[in-house]
Amino acid sequence: MSDAPKEIDALIDMMARLPGLGPRSARRAALHLIKKRGMLMKPLAEAMGAVADTARECLNCGNISTADICSICTSEKRRIGEICVVEDVADLWAMERAAVFKGRYHVLGGTLSALDQIGPEQLGIPKLIERVSSEEVTEVILALNATVDGQTTAHYIADQLEHRVRVTSLAQGVPIGGELDYLDDGTITAALRARKQV
Amino acid sequence: MSDAPKEIDALIDMMARLPGLGPRSARRAALHLIKKRGMLMKPLAEAMGAVADTARECLNCGNISTADICSICTSEKRRIGEICVVEDVADLWAMERAAVFKGRYHVLGGTLSALDQIGPEQLGIPKLIERVSSEEVTEVILALNATVDGQTTAHYIADQLEHRVRVTSLAQGVPIGGELDYLDDGTITAALRARKQV
Repeated sequence: MSDAPKEIDALIDMMARLPGLGPRSARRAALHLIKKRGMLMKPLAEAMGAVADTARECLNCGNISTADICSICTSEKRRIGEICVVEDVADLWAMERAAVFKGRYHVLGGTLSALDQIGPEQLGIPKLIERVSSEEVTEVILALNATVDGQTTAHYIADQLEHRVRVTSLAQGVPIGGELDYLDDGTITAALRARKQV
Repeated sequence: MSDAPKEIDALIDMMARLPGLGPRSARRAALHLIKKRGMLMKPLAEAMGAVADTARECLNCGNISTADICSICTSEKRRIGEICVVEDVADLWAMERAAVFKGRYHVLGGTLSALDQIGPEQLGIPKLIERVSSEEVTEVILALNATVDGQTTAHYIADQLEHRVRVTSLAQGVPIGGELDYLDDGTITAALRARKQV
């Protein structure tokens, strides 16, 4: 409730449902938009409407795209032998920002969870296995989050793909710029176990 | 940059310009919207477009409205003798949520600032003085923020309206639920000076 006209109240209610915005910051953001209604609000509304109409999941890998098959899956510059498995499109974007991986992706859209009744089918794991069989895949790189759920899912996928293809996962260790004093015990343990000769 | 299709990148860029959202949270919010594109993104785009088309400043008080004169200024239930002066529409909404003030408002849209070259004209102070003369105003309540700029502006307005109308300002003191240990010196000083007999 902001005691604004009901159209503006409805807008604020919807904006408050965005992650990272609560009722108060939604009011602030809405007021900011109204003050810049010509320069920002109108173009933003149009951009949002356009994306809502055109965005869809890539039928092959699950990436967000404006076409049925995303630009990474159709690119001739990407190696077709490597598939990087990520939990979410945000993780795919993070990998792309690092600009180090030149293969293609498979977006799970979550992790296995008995509590939330999310099994392999909900995550497109059968589709991943099918891709490994039908495409000329030589390596599946598991880039799942280093959380309990992420690692459980990684183990499940590794089991399923055993003997079919080489399965690797991202290295765990000290992040670049990380200070030992601020790292958790698990990270230090993992880094020590995976130590390398200099 | 998110390595998303360019329509989605443009959307993220615009969302990152909202107060309270940075590049990372704009990406998260955009992904959330895309996942809920039917239920949330489409209606939000429409609500935003509708507000961008209809919202405007009330010609009388500066409140955000969908009509030339806002619902508070046209309401017959509001006392016309009292004008509450606020810096911003957000402050007007905060006053309305408290639901204690039954008069009408005057929104300055900022504070006096020599650095930013904001003088009385930019804040609609002449308009306020005109309203005090032409409407049957008996009291002007200054509800400006308790900041240096807010209080400077309050003093300026009080000077301008002296001898024309009764000018009051919000009481300063301990906020309800406030603990002395967490209050700043200025608040405690103000509360002690304005102490009342029990």
